[in-house]
Amino acid sequence: MMPTTATPRHSEYRLRRRVHFYEADPAGIVHFSWFSRYLEEAEHALWREAGLSIAPLTSDIAFPRVAMTFDFRRPLRFEDEFEVHIRIAAIGRASMRYTCVVTHGGQEVATGSLTIACVQRGVDGTMHAVPIPDHIRSRFEVAAEASA
Amino acid sequence: MMPTTATPRHSEYRLRRRVHFYEADPAGIVHFSWFSRYLEEAEHALWREAGLSIAPLTSDIAFPRVAMTFDFRRPLRFEDEFEVHIRIAAIGRASMRYTCVVTHGGQEVATGSLTIACVQRGVDGTMHAVPIPDHIRSRFEVAAEASA
Amino acid sequence: MMPTTATPRHSEYRLRRRVHFYEADPAGIVHFSWFSRYLEEAEHALWREAGLSIAPLTSDIAFPRVAMTFDFRRPLRFEDEFEVHIRIAAIGRASMRYTCVVTHGGQEVATGSLTIACVQRGVDGTMHAVPIPDHIRSRFEVAAEASA
Amino acid sequence: MMPTTATPRHSEYRLRRRVHFYEADPAGIVHFSWFSRYLEEAEHALWREAGLSIAPLTSDIAFPRVAMTFDFRRPLRFEDEFEVHIRIAAIGRASMRYTCVVTHGGQEVATGSLTIACVQRGVDGTMHAVPIPDHIRSRFEVAAEASA
Repeated sequence: MMPTTATPRHSEYRLRRRVHFYEADPAGIVHFSWFSRYLEEAEHALWREAGLSIAPLTSDIAFPRVAMTFDFRRPLRFEDEFEVHIRIAAIGRASMRYTCVVTHGGQEVATGSLTIACVQRGVDGTMHAVPIPDHIRSRFEVAAEASA
Repeated sequence: MMPTTATPRHSEYRLRRRVHFYEADPAGIVHFSWFSRYLEEAEHALWREAGLSIAPLTSDIAFPRVAMTFDFRRPLRFEDEFEVHIRIAAIGRASMRYTCVVTHGGQEVATGSLTIACVQRGVDGTMHAVPIPDHIRSRFEVAAEASA
Repeated sequence: MMPTTATPRHSEYRLRRRVHFYEADPAGIVHFSWFSRYLEEAEHALWREAGLSIAPLTSDIAFPRVAMTFDFRRPLRFEDEFEVHIRIAAIGRASMRYTCVVTHGGQEVATGSLTIACVQRGVDGTMHAVPIPDHIRSRFEVAAEASA
Repeated sequence: MMPTTATPRHSEYRLRRRVHFYEADPAGIVHFSWFSRYLEEAEHALWREAGLSIAPLTSDIAFPRVAMTFDFRRPLRFEDEFEVHIRIAAIGRASMRYTCVVTHGGQEVATGSLTIACVQRGVDGTMHAVPIPDHIRSRFEVAAEASA
């Protein structure tokens, strides 16, 4: 059977979001811990756009985070509207890597990266690395211009 | 067999805590959403003092929160040391109710209450009310002076 | 000059939102502390719809939270889409009270209330109650069917 | 007057902490966003041990975060007791860099790094880089064995 082009692969997502009051700190700017959450929100939206949930209720496959980096250039404040542009930078046998750029009013606020692993969870809570299942891998591809 | 006094029952706990930077908001004061977390931290410390975990890894018994109230009188700020005094106000067949007083420097910051239910979780995630197991109920008692 | 009807008053808002992964706890359900944040998100959206920010960058008027209640009936889970329907239940000289209903798939998840005060902040961080400024009060009215 | 050695310089801190319920996610493990908060808690404790607050109420000097990295090796779960060992890896004219190791039961859970800048805030909220004030710089020194 020939491969078809009926199912497009997904490689990036642009999440638009407004800063909530509780995300900003006494300095009046978004606390840096929120950027990892913004990145993950964009990741999960990318998966949903690909027809997937990253954490279905009954799955024993999970995607723990194994590495993260962030550089912060400008602050975000309460009610600022910003964009998180996530791109798939690499797809390995049992891992994936994303990069992201956070912008506000056309200016770069932060850049980041996130590496996730694919694991199978035992009933005792242990996790061991497994290949990314085909029905997941087949929905994604590396973005053309993902920065390292 | 006679009941013994060998195992004291627990009815209250005083948690001492310092405000973290990320808990304060752009107004410079602890965001009100944190008080429900402070109350829960005190609850879990009370359970630990009674020799219990409220959420053991392998248990199908859980204690979801069913009601909460808070009144806020004074603000807390970054690095303030405060106390959360939790007391058991009522123990029902399948529920418990706590009250708490949050103080800082001898002054009342907030008062609150929390009601939890005892449920059994099915493999499909459903929950139905069950009596509090005896090995848990027997470790607690209502505090003498718990305010309503 | 006659009063005009050009500026409608606002009394309620319906916020639609999806549960983020980091909002759910080891029991697989949204941690109860998030409901106070959902309520506040809806409040701030109501103010924006009324052409206002509840915390402008340069204002010495602030609206600290003075009381909150919540009753929880059903759980929310990762990726659930839910609605927070906030209504103004009372407007006093120096305070306002909201009620809210959180629903998911047509079913009631939680109900809550929130009372806020209007204060003026001194340069030393102190706060004292002041009447709600007219340019704010004039944008809001009590909702017709707000439950107590 | 001769300089004295009466005031020791500080270069590291070991924070001991227990995982709160609300820090763990539906996978039953601490959500990765919390590690940046754990690191910051250790940083602020290091500053307090050095007799300083990183964010005094009335200061126009602030220390925004400009870069962060984390590698995650093992999960933390509810009620786990863990340690965050933070060390000063570099002190520049207007910036500092920390590294940290998070351990649990003698095993490495995560490693991370954090770079902060020293800025002066204008009344309009703008920030520009300034040298770290001497009364702060003089309290700290680079740790002997800080890993890069």
